Amino acid sequence: MTTWVLTLSCPDRPGIVAAVAGALAGLEGNITESQQFGDPETGLFFMRVQVACEADRELIAEAIGAVGQQFAMTWNLDEVGRRMRTVLMVSTAAHCLHDLAYRQRSGQLPVEITAVVSNHETLRPIADFYGLPFHHVPVVGGSAESKESAEAELRRIVESTGTELVVLARYMQILSDELCRDLAGRIINIHHSFLPSFKGARPYAQAHARGVKLIGATAHYATADLDEGPIIEQDVARVEHDDPVAQLQAMGEDVERRVLARAVGWHAEHRILLDGRRTVVFH
Amino acid sequence: MTTWVLTLSCPDRPGIVAAVAGALAGLEGNITESQQFGDPETGLFFMRVQVACEADRELIAEAIGAVGQQFAMTWNLDEVGRRMRTVLMVSTAAHCLHDLAYRQRSGQLPVEITAVVSNHETLRPIADFYGLPFHHVPVVGGSAESKESAEAELRRIVESTGTELVVLARYMQILSDELCRDLAGRIINIHHSFLPSFKGARPYAQAHARGVKLIGATAHYATADLDEGPIIEQDVARVEHDDPVAQLQAMGEDVERRVLARAVGWHAEHRILLDGRRTVVFH
Amino acid sequence: MTTWVLTLSCPDRPGIVAAVAGALAGLEGNITESQQFGDPETGLFFMRVQVACEADRELIAEAIGAVGQQFAMTWNLDEVGRRMRTVLMVSTAAHCLHDLAYRQRSGQLPVEITAVVSNHETLRPIADFYGLPFHHVPVVGGSAESKESAEAELRRIVESTGTELVVLARYMQILSDELCRDLAGRIINIHHSFLPSFKGARPYAQAHARGVKLIGATAHYATADLDEGPIIEQDVARVEHDDPVAQLQAMGEDVERRVLARAVGWHAEHRILLDGRRTVVFH
Amino acid sequence: MTTWVLTLSCPDRPGIVAAVAGALAGLEGNITESQQFGDPETGLFFMRVQVACEADRELIAEAIGAVGQQFAMTWNLDEVGRRMRTVLMVSTAAHCLHDLAYRQRSGQLPVEITAVVSNHETLRPIADFYGLPFHHVPVVGGSAESKESAEAELRRIVESTGTELVVLARYMQILSDELCRDLAGRIINIHHSFLPSFKGARPYAQAHARGVKLIGATAHYATADLDEGPIIEQDVARVEHDDPVAQLQAMGEDVERRVLARAVGWHAEHRILLDGRRTVVFH
Repeated sequence: MTTWVLTLSCPDRPGIVAAVAGALAGLEGNITESQQFGDPETGLFFMRVQVACEADRELIAEAIGAVGQQFAMTWNLDEVGRRMRTVLMVSTAAHCLHDLAYRQRSGQLPVEITAVVSNHETLRPIADFYGLPFHHVPVVGGSAESKESAEAELRRIVESTGTELVVLARYMQILSDELCRDLAGRIINIHHSFLPSFKGARPYAQAHARGVKLIGATAHYATADLDEGPIIEQDVARVEHDDPVAQLQAMGEDVERRVLARAVGWHAEHRILLDGRRTVVFH
Repeated sequence: MTTWVLTLSCPDRPGIVAAVAGALAGLEGNITESQQFGDPETGLFFMRVQVACEADRELIAEAIGAVGQQFAMTWNLDEVGRRMRTVLMVSTAAHCLHDLAYRQRSGQLPVEITAVVSNHETLRPIADFYGLPFHHVPVVGGSAESKESAEAELRRIVESTGTELVVLARYMQILSDELCRDLAGRIINIHHSFLPSFKGARPYAQAHARGVKLIGATAHYATADLDEGPIIEQDVARVEHDDPVAQLQAMGEDVERRVLARAVGWHAEHRILLDGRRTVVFH
Repeated sequence: MTTWVLTLSCPDRPGIVAAVAGALAGLEGNITESQQFGDPETGLFFMRVQVACEADRELIAEAIGAVGQQFAMTWNLDEVGRRMRTVLMVSTAAHCLHDLAYRQRSGQLPVEITAVVSNHETLRPIADFYGLPFHHVPVVGGSAESKESAEAELRRIVESTGTELVVLARYMQILSDELCRDLAGRIINIHHSFLPSFKGARPYAQAHARGVKLIGATAHYATADLDEGPIIEQDVARVEHDDPVAQLQAMGEDVERRVLARAVGWHAEHRILLDGRRTVVFH
Repeated sequence: MTTWVLTLSCPDRPGIVAAVAGALAGLEGNITESQQFGDPETGLFFMRVQVACEADRELIAEAIGAVGQQFAMTWNLDEVGRRMRTVLMVSTAAHCLHDLAYRQRSGQLPVEITAVVSNHETLRPIADFYGLPFHHVPVVGGSAESKESAEAELRRIVESTGTELVVLARYMQILSDELCRDLAGRIINIHHSFLPSFKGARPYAQAHARGVKLIGATAHYATADLDEGPIIEQDVARVEHDDPVAQLQAMGEDVERRVLARAVGWHAEHRILLDGRRTVVFH
């Protein structure tokens, strides 16, 4: 029997859970996991349901579609455990690539890495080691033209591989507003800082200069407004007065890869729903 | 409109969520929070639902009762925000009493402390400060007779005050098996250690001797099998080689009161369900 | 035998440790704790030494004074365990006052609270409970005149009680630049946020709106540049999408009091030295 | 100019710091880091000093040797940054090997991995990827004979490569008492549990059955008394009621590799000194 994951959001009103549960019960589905959240501020209702069911996708989609129409839902249906097709974008820092590739291979992350795209050649050997297709897509001198052609190439890769998720795994280029909009909610970035602190360049040097006692990392969806996209996950590590910037950086890398891996995993399992500038995370 | 909290458990099978949600929808109830868990090992299903509803308690109980019979449920219905009547049992350590009394008064804990019971007079001034009835119930020399009469007195206090929850807030006496059984799932203990480590006396001295780098605390339901009751919550703090036992103890007290306050709050909000030797915590 | 704590800073160069240790050895002192840090960026050297010694204060001060002159040191000598005379300034939030007063009484904090000063009457009962002198020093309408006279009164209290440390334990008034300068390095503030995030008013509401997954608190020395004083300690707690602002606030209070207690304790034990905008914390 | 790291321990008495600092000052050494600890229980004194000095090793050793004799010290002198020659022993779990190899290559760990030794062929490709010599040393059927010959082979590898440290990076074989004694204080093990909890087999299954809310890992020196060696570092991760054993294992792996990497780094930097059953960690 297949287990399905259904996510949905709609304006909050009585009867939603009953309608959804009723539709699934009508298909002899057994709900194995269910979480919901009504946001009193936005008036929106969010739900994630896992249901074991012998009916096929069409039958389920039909049943849910009827309920969806009744409640003006945005909804999505997927198979639990299906590996989400994912592109990793990197520059020269290896730690996130290593970590995600390792976790994919060891079965900890339900993703299929369809391509590693980089503006440098540096990390090709790591992609090779894990048997991942590597695409060198240079951005020469940061010129507008070069960026545009790089993004066009990225779009070609995303489309030709049927990619669903783009992970900026320490990719040091800013994506265009247009690309962020087109792939809204499908690009995850790891920010090497505890947002909203220390935006911009060299955050660990900024953190060191400010004398902070904790450093952090933030995984968020990329939006046109740089570093302001909805936050998915954050974590911190403790630093001391005698930790030089290099040590902060090493510790920061550990936090980054941990935070990014969690965010990617939750996204791939459809555990994250967008609620305006915020995220609902059913973990 | 009142918001109700319904908790239930029963053997897992298809249709439970639909039946519950349908019953509540039939009363025009609006589900505002819902969590569930099917334990593949015990085959049991657990659910906690908050529902805003204009129907009165009897109508809701009737509707749920019908579903409950159909699925062989154990279920409970309460009003959200109602303060659970709670007895605190203490000996001479003040930190947990202080913390719980402060949190009650500042509205952070949905409990009403009906009595502070102690085998010592030491903490009476704190109870007085917070305006809490204090009962000195001595256990003289730890004799069986004295314990028995102390427990009888405790039972009288619990009954006469309509107390629903007993919190062992660093009460240094062992309760009888009989009392643990009679109040099963209604007595919360804070263990000054990270169970299953360091059971028994002087855990911080044991931890120091062993040279651990983390100390912890565990809140659990009291059972006849001392220190083996279902764990509700645990947390830790980091220690260094030059922290003497007294420092471990001070840090340990901080962890204890934090962990105990969380456990009491979750219990009072009906967020904890028993699943054999384990707890399901819907937080 | 008395144990002394010596703290010092000076331009870094060879021979400092040997000179200090030699001077103390000349007095038959036994060094029981010693920490040091040379900051490569500022070129400054920092040291904290605990020494058990039968010589009296004058003899030790003379010996250290000679070394101090040789190396152009700023230094301080105190008795280990002496309780630092401390004023707590509060407004209406009780959690930090409760916590510090409780820790003083239970011997966890080496401070003697000489006065609780507040611009409100709200917390007088708590001060009374702990037997602490309470001074109501109103700031009427926030007028410049009223602030000035309140600060004058605060100065009188600080001087007449021989107070060494002022703790802003959720005191919701901004101190004048002049007072911050006069008591530089002797005023500790708890900021209800994870600086440098969310400065200014209602940080928990800001944090909630931004959808952060961690909230934090920062203890720092107060300076004229609000919220920019040297950071002493920071900590965080994890929040979820369904935690309303009130819940963030309750969790935030827990973090605040923990962080503030650590900062006050370290200061009272002379574990914090100022290194420009940063702190050296020998814990 | 070379920076040296000196570690020492001896019976505690006045004058040790002065004597050491004086000896180094006599060589025009500049102490850049210094930490010490006097254990009141064992009466032992521990110290770690980093000193920048133009004198060569012989001169320094001579000066320290004289002081060492005076105070009956055990002491060690090494160059800061020298990479410690290290053998990794593994079985089939890849996470610790991956992590340590990655950290070595990226310059985060001051070790030189001289060999990867395994009783299985499984992880050879990872060793190859990182360019590390891989030795398959099977232990057939766990027979005493096979174990003996495997240990003899391990000793040969350790000796022929001038290896100073052996890391049991999830090596699932028990070493002989004799080997543990011969390499006392030079074998680091990662225990997949929060010692002293859950010794023995399948700790994550044990932890799940017990319903713990935190899982942890412990790095310790290996001794003949299995799982009882001096603890170096511990850390934890939070688990929920609905995390199956496999999830606990995945989270546990993250904790394990983090904890092990810290322990190996501290050992390689001579930050750990043995104090009976406990460790002094100068980090």
